[in-house]
Amino acid sequence: MEITFLGTGAGLPSKERNVTAVALSMLQELNEVWLFDCGEATQHQLLHTKIKPGKINKIFISHMHGDHIYGLPGFLSSRSFQAGADRPLTIYGPEGSKEFIQAALKLSYTHLTYPLTVIEIKEGLLFETEAIEVYAKKLVHGVPSFGFRIVEKDKPGELLVDKLKEKGVRPGPVYGEIKEKPSVTLEDGTIIYRSDFIGSPKKGRVISILGDTTYQAAHKEFVKNSDLLIHEATFAADKEALAEDYFHSTNIQAAKIALDAGCKQLILTHISSRYQFSDMDAFLEETKEVFLNTSIAGDFSVFQL
Amino acid sequence: MEITFLGTGAGLPSKERNVTAVALSMLQELNEVWLFDCGEATQHQLLHTKIKPGKINKIFISHMHGDHIYGLPGFLSSRSFQAGADRPLTIYGPEGSKEFIQAALKLSYTHLTYPLTVIEIKEGLLFETEAIEVYAKKLVHGVPSFGFRIVEKDKPGELLVDKLKEKGVRPGPVYGEIKEKPSVTLEDGTIIYRSDFIGSPKKGRVISILGDTTYQAAHKEFVKNSDLLIHEATFAADKEALAEDYFHSTNIQAAKIALDAGCKQLILTHISSRYQFSDMDAFLEETKEVFLNTSIAGDFSVFQL
Ligand SMILES: [Zn+2]
Ligand SMILES: [Zn+2]
Repeated sequence: MEITFLGTGAGLPSKERNVTAVALSMLQELNEVWLFDCGEATQHQLLHTKIKPGKINKIFISHMHGDHIYGLPGFLSSRSFQAGADRPLTIYGPEGSKEFIQAALKLSYTHLTYPLTVIEIKEGLLFETEAIEVYAKKLVHGVPSFGFRIVEKDKPGELLVDKLKEKGVRPGPVYGEIKEKPSVTLEDGTIIYRSDFIGSPKKGRVISILGDTTYQAAHKEFVKNSDLLIHEATFAADKEALAEDYFHSTNIQAAKIALDAGCKQLILTHISSRYQFSDMDAFLEETKEVFLNTSIAGDFSVFQL
Repeated sequence: MEITFLGTGAGLPSKERNVTAVALSMLQELNEVWLFDCGEATQHQLLHTKIKPGKINKIFISHMHGDHIYGLPGFLSSRSFQAGADRPLTIYGPEGSKEFIQAALKLSYTHLTYPLTVIEIKEGLLFETEAIEVYAKKLVHGVPSFGFRIVEKDKPGELLVDKLKEKGVRPGPVYGEIKEKPSVTLEDGTIIYRSDFIGSPKKGRVISILGDTTYQAAHKEFVKNSDLLIHEATFAADKEALAEDYFHSTNIQAAKIALDAGCKQLILTHISSRYQFSDMDAFLEETKEVFLNTSIAGDFSVFQL
């Protein structure tokens, strides 16, 4: 999995940071790329990455504020002219998503070349596939705002082929049988116990990506034990009152959630334009005092997981 | 007057050109800046110019294609947070403009800090002030698309103060009288004829800015004798059939209009991303064979008039 930040600012674009969008590439795992929020000029930002719009097949919208959705009409339209443009796209967003997209496309005489589905979401399990589950939770932001928890399912261990060969069991249909059944009796009478020839299961990863929100201790339950938590940090610690007034969080509040929820890694984004790049060292140091494994995202920051 | 091109590409943003927007600064003349079209990320482009969003008090939308309007919601929202944010803004656009803007603002919970008026336009005189007239004309683009003709009114000549002083007429209320009346008799009986003491009137300038359009000889009437014609040139001359299929123009067609209409200067914009910057020398040379005083706009090109 690879996470690319396409916009890491709050409210307005600045010369340093575009408005919000994050891409989660799961090309190796699922041959899919998911987008979380789509602020204005997200399609422009993508031009400077290796992510192909046609590979993006799911978009999650945390909330309907302009800095998180105004890039949708342009992204959707332009995707019709790019490689993979026949690939279906599903958007998961709050109430109003459908009307917003339909109005923008209709009034601009836009006809997409691919099937588009817009699903207006509620709290709970959004969907489940063989490999993954995605959950949504309502946050607190003055308008409906959601967080997303992406849970990769554990993968059963691999068959220990070398160990079987050592034991003299030659490749063939029997390998499949060993993988399926608790035990298999070979023609010579030997009993093979699966547990002896299967590696340990591969633990699925958990990524939590929260939309704009004020601090709520209760959020820790939703992001519990995440391998990665992506959390907004519009303000530094000394602006806690301001953060509360505007339904946003400080770096320290984000760090507290990460700590209390037992997360492994925290990435801060949605940084107010009152802060310059030159303020970021202090911003980060302050956060690390509460949660050590913290990074601050910049536009085009890429993280591997 | 100063013209700043904020986006000069066609259809999709590219690394070289953003989608369409042109700013006409008349700060000295009217203390106003007008915007023509507002493609996605126009507010981002403005960050790299000296134009203040709060100074923009009129926006003209040529047509409702996404590459000309998707930057509106973001521009309108962000303007609320900038200097001059209480200044009224009027948008002149085709049918659908009102619904597009209302839907985007409503569904994103956006409350502007300034009075916004959206006027859906028809052909003819859009408005007239003491200093200026603006006309609209329907072009041919598959969807309603307009061209705009901005006509600065002629200014009466200035009083020739030095000449009056030479003649022994001293500054005072009589100067106003001389300016107002065809002739004035001074106390000593001298008759002053206005025509002798007024400089020549300052001819108003005419700027024509056309939206996307296919070639129509009839357009020359609308842009007649323009000091400056801004015309789309999506394709080069050898793609005339393609231009017609997609309701666009070639560089040569734009040049023919400029020539036949007796325009003084032609600036080409809305260049397809099939052309690179490195193709522009040939593109321009070809155009100049028909109309010599031609330029090709790039993003952030500035022209004085
Ligand atoms: Zn936001
Ligand atoms: Zn266009």
